[in-house]
Amino acid sequence: MSVLVVGSVALDSVETPFGKAEEALGGSGTFFSASASHFTPVRLVGVVGDDYPIDKLKVLAERGVDLTGVEKADGESFRWRGRYRHDLNSAETLETRLGVFSHFRPKIPEQFKKTPYVFLANIDPRLQLEVLRQVEQPKLVACDTMNFWIESRRPELLELLARVDLITLNDGEARQLTETANLVKAARWILARGPKHVIIKKGEHGAFMFTEKTVFFAPAYPLEDVFDPTGAGDAFAGGFMGYLARTGDLSEPSLKRAVVYGSAMGSFAVERFSIQRFQELTREEIRARVKEFYRLVSFEEDLLS
Amino acid sequence: MSVLVVGSVALDSVETPFGKAEEALGGSGTFFSASASHFTPVRLVGVVGDDYPIDKLKVLAERGVDLTGVEKADGESFRWRGRYRHDLNSAETLETRLGVFSHFRPKIPEQFKKTPYVFLANIDPRLQLEVLRQVEQPKLVACDTMNFWIESRRPELLELLARVDLITLNDGEARQLTETANLVKAARWILARGPKHVIIKKGEHGAFMFTEKTVFFAPAYPLEDVFDPTGAGDAFAGGFMGYLARTGDLSEPSLKRAVVYGSAMGSFAVERFSIQRFQELTREEIRARVKEFYRLVSFEEDLLS
Repeated sequence: MSVLVVGSVALDSVETPFGKAEEALGGSGTFFSASASHFTPVRLVGVVGDDYPIDKLKVLAERGVDLTGVEKADGESFRWRGRYRHDLNSAETLETRLGVFSHFRPKIPEQFKKTPYVFLANIDPRLQLEVLRQVEQPKLVACDTMNFWIESRRPELLELLARVDLITLNDGEARQLTETANLVKAARWILARGPKHVIIKKGEHGAFMFTEKTVFFAPAYPLEDVFDPTGAGDAFAGGFMGYLARTGDLSEPSLKRAVVYGSAMGSFAVERFSIQRFQELTREEIRARVKEFYRLVSFEEDLLS
Repeated sequence: MSVLVVGSVALDSVETPFGKAEEALGGSGTFFSASASHFTPVRLVGVVGDDYPIDKLKVLAERGVDLTGVEKADGESFRWRGRYRHDLNSAETLETRLGVFSHFRPKIPEQFKKTPYVFLANIDPRLQLEVLRQVEQPKLVACDTMNFWIESRRPELLELLARVDLITLNDGEARQLTETANLVKAARWILARGPKHVIIKKGEHGAFMFTEKTVFFAPAYPLEDVFDPTGAGDAFAGGFMGYLARTGDLSEPSLKRAVVYGSAMGSFAVERFSIQRFQELTREEIRARVKEFYRLVSFEEDLLS
């Protein structure tokens, strides 16, 4: 089954201790699509400017990403420029130019409206709500958000929460949204407002999935070489949603596996600049990494006498 | 089988957002013993001043901690005063008075010298080495350390590394010791210098155990109420060593379980001030929490088609 994602399609210029990328493919919609396309057909809705090197998106199309919904508008493309210091912990944003993205009004193509799996990547909650008004009876709707929207669009974000099945957000955002330092309490706060599942991403420290009655945790894969952390969260979401769409299984065990597949895809994202790693990634490599996650956390219970 | 621990026996005054404790039982040896005693007999070696409320240690003796090695010296006891802010992330040290601890020279009582499991808690590496010269053919020796010794006793610490089977240290300390930001590389650096196992504790973010060929990870238990983080690392070590001593099993699966038992004991430590939680803790509660750890990370593998 297909996944519909509405998000940004950007040009990233990134500097890490290991090198530089100039105007590389970036944006939440792009990273999500590159990751999810390893599992299932993807339908991407977004906007680029008339200066976008549209040819570069071919690599997504070749991987089964339907780009019909990527609108070309007059003006500059969304550009982000950032830098990571030696510990790779957090990006320092050097420049953000929204360009045509600032006037983006998502229009879901007719043939996309019945997509069963919908991911509302990190865009204005008003637009996320607009997408929900256009799609028809999705099986699962998940959204992401960020500090900027939590601050400036709180009422709309709360309205959105009441209408999604699942939200992914990072630990800092969860604390900001709920005004609660403790993540278990923060998750409960969010669950009380609508979503049946809350995924709190902690970057290099892994991810929690909370439901009303359960907690599941997957660590980040301990890589010896993290090259560029950009896009890891969207690649996580792509793996998570892609896995669910592929299997069509929304049971609790399947959702747990989806978190692990998401973590695996996040770990691949950071091994290269941009979406490069997803262009060469094989099914066998994904399987092998999921097995490594299994070994990483598995232990045999005993009965302590 | 018994565990020998050499560490500090202190008086902690702690302020958290939830209350205050004045001159409560503290110190690495104390927390370790309180935790390990839930698994196996413990032999504690340390020093207290002539002002120490020695009666308070009775709670340890009642739990099977042999206090023969706790020397009483003329002078003030080791006191630590600290504060945690609302996020409970890191302690702010307000005052450290070493007192008699600054002249501590561990003397292992004759009847303790053949203890099979030895934990060198966080004290001067010179003293940790002195302990090693006194013990006889231990089955497993583990040590802990801290930033202060990494800076001021580097040569002795490296000598110690060559002589222990296992080291526990936190992520910041691992980075400082190895001058490496990446924890996988940091662990390899340490493994190359002697220990067969390196446990890197990340506080609320869990703990890694590295060997030359394997990595194991246990999350910190997601508690809704963290009361006082003091002593969690030593309680972890106590659970880890206590479990190994109880089972006498040093196989890889057993070491993994020991990490989980350590994490469970760390999670209990933070639920109350000082060692209070360990005074009321039951075997059933420990078993139940380990089961929760199992549920927290377990997922069924699938064969992605």
